Amino acid sequence: MDDKRIFIFDTTLRDGEQVPGCKLNTEKKIEIALQLELLGVDILEAGFPISSPGDFESVRRISEALREPIICGLSRAVEKDIEVAADALKPARRARIHTGIGTSESHILYKLHSTQEKIIERAVAAVKKAKSYVEDVEFYAEDAGRTDNEYLARVCEAVIKAGATVLNIPDTTGYCLPEEYGAKIRYLKENVTGIDKAILSTHCHNDLGLATANSISGVQNGARQIECTINGIGERAGNTSLEEVVMIMRQHPYLGFKDGINTRLLYRTSQLVSESMAMPVQPNKAIVGANAFAHSSGIHQDGVIKKRETYEIIDPLEVGVDHSKIVLTARSGRAAIAYRSKQIGHNLSKEELDLVYQEFLQVADQKKEVNDDDLSAIIGKVVVTVS
Amino acid sequence: MDDKRIFIFDTTLRDGEQVPGCKLNTEKKIEIALQLELLGVDILEAGFPISSPGDFESVRRISEALREPIICGLSRAVEKDIEVAADALKPARRARIHTGIGTSESHILYKLHSTQEKIIERAVAAVKKAKSYVEDVEFYAEDAGRTDNEYLARVCEAVIKAGATVLNIPDTTGYCLPEEYGAKIRYLKENVTGIDKAILSTHCHNDLGLATANSISGVQNGARQIECTINGIGERAGNTSLEEVVMIMRQHPYLGFKDGINTRLLYRTSQLVSESMAMPVQPNKAIVGANAFAHSSGIHQDGVIKKRETYEIIDPLEVGVDHSKIVLTARSGRAAIAYRSKQIGHNLSKEELDLVYQEFLQVADQKKEVNDDDLSAIIGKVVVTVS
Repeated sequence: MDDKRIFIFDTTLRDGEQVPGCKLNTEKKIEIALQLELLGVDILEAGFPISSPGDFESVRRISEALREPIICGLSRAVEKDIEVAADALKPARRARIHTGIGTSESHILYKLHSTQEKIIERAVAAVKKAKSYVEDVEFYAEDAGRTDNEYLARVCEAVIKAGATVLNIPDTTGYCLPEEYGAKIRYLKENVTGIDKAILSTHCHNDLGLATANSISGVQNGARQIECTINGIGERAGNTSLEEVVMIMRQHPYLGFKDGINTRLLYRTSQLVSESMAMPVQPNKAIVGANAFAHSSGIHQDGVIKKRETYEIIDPLEVGVDHSKIVLTARSGRAAIAYRSKQIGHNLSKEELDLVYQEFLQVADQKKEVNDDDLSAIIGKVVVTVS
Repeated sequence: MDDKRIFIFDTTLRDGEQVPGCKLNTEKKIEIALQLELLGVDILEAGFPISSPGDFESVRRISEALREPIICGLSRAVEKDIEVAADALKPARRARIHTGIGTSESHILYKLHSTQEKIIERAVAAVKKAKSYVEDVEFYAEDAGRTDNEYLARVCEAVIKAGATVLNIPDTTGYCLPEEYGAKIRYLKENVTGIDKAILSTHCHNDLGLATANSISGVQNGARQIECTINGIGERAGNTSLEEVVMIMRQHPYLGFKDGINTRLLYRTSQLVSESMAMPVQPNKAIVGANAFAHSSGIHQDGVIKKRETYEIIDPLEVGVDHSKIVLTARSGRAAIAYRSKQIGHNLSKEELDLVYQEFLQVADQKKEVNDDDLSAIIGKVVVTVS
């Protein structure tokens, strides 16, 4: 296996679906899961089986329906959780149980009312229990972002010995800065005995708008799996956006990272998730927002028309978007008007363009967006006057 | 002046308004500008005066209406642009002209059809021209993110000599990784003669989801101004989100940065901008999204109820949001049901809670979100049965 292969762990249907207002029945979940399989995710976290009968059913049905990705089910470090997850995952060709427990002082003292040593015992017991059902066991150290590195390393060593194949290091509250998160991953890579037997995984939340940067910092420092969701959905401010981390790796090939995603399906997948969950994507969302490739200012339009790379680094086709939309507004310049006019069949002379542009500015100040019909009307009015 | 004071340069009404579909007349712009003044922005970029008569009028009227922030107007490195900007800014108590030109190979060769030396001449001439009108002149090196550092340093030296007080280093295409952008700022800080006479400014775009991280990396490496917009609006995937960079600085006090923002007005300002521009904020937007402080999973709800800091690092009140909303769904656990029941007046016994919880799971699997009325109905049904 290539040392720089990054595994994409999609948790749209688990952490992503943990969203107030999101509406998904089992049939919809299967439809999304099949699309994620086409997209090429390596691991698909299908749900949290013990949390409700509906979730159990979804994990079971997705395990039956998919062939390529590893199917993962979440559990707490609790015997019953793990049993139920194993049961739901039974039909999967390749199954992974994801289990874990809080490791930060805040979680140990206030949520779990326990001690560091007892937490290690519970972590080890949970991994062993999961290992009795499946070979592939991922351990999460909840709130790892606020966990002391030395203790976190001890937890990691213990669960690797117990058979964990993947170590998930979540920044549960979205608190870390990129260099802090990266340093944490590097510390584990350098200080955990047996770390080469497991894959380190990033799981970042976006409370401060840093989930994407933190995940990239994680892989730059030794992680080889990124946990993420389509459109960055998830509890509170959501999770790392799958589309952002993948496109960062593609746009910076010198980093050397490889992934298995068919990027041309990103836009379609984003639309499916947004519509199914009734979770709107804001127009200025990176990669998949309605405006991600739209230009309205004159300076930018002029540049794009001369050479696309002037203002765009991503070819919209690469993520499944048809074209760079040029939207005419009061800030559009002469070049954009000439270009758009030509596209709708009018090759304007310099003199005509001057007149059209003056009229256009009047219309644009009132109408904000000038569409092709408006532009035709302006040209009709002005060019008739000229001739 | 404190060496760690970070100036917040708001460009919601200029780069932010350069958005297809955004609708703002002059009155609305003044309303937003007054709100931004209350919020405490240090510099307010009010528009691009030469771009349209409406923009000219807005910059002039905002210059008249505001008292505290520096009012800034954009121009290209073109005499007429600068004259018109100066004219629009005349009523301002403190005015800044923002002028500049592309400095990357792509911009110089394909957009400007020029050479590196001629670009420096034009940059110097533009700064001198602006300086003939106002003391405070900001220079932007467009596409600085893709400009060779050695040449960029020469441009910066030349414009400082010509009188520039602020150097804006835009990552125009949103291409840089945080460490690359930070290294660029540090290079300029260390290699530009006379750099202490000017303030370095970040201006990052969000095409890859990295604008916030890049801006923070910029100030960690010597920049002292951040250009940003409310809700991160702007062309394509938008600009750096004001609310995100400010809250990162507040949440990481050890960085030592200070700013003048009244964070309790962030949410109200976000709502005003979103509604005025008809630019929706996605529910999972950091800091200001509808779900930013909402918890729906049982594990998280249990933690938050025991101690808020378990899953939240930001007190919602600090950004002007009333309370952490607890939304009940099929993933809510017993603790959340007990807590919410108590809040609506029912102190359930353990036995009652077990029954309510079973019934609740049935309802939640069908209804997705269970509100207070539903919960009352469930309790009414189950507790009557018990008594």
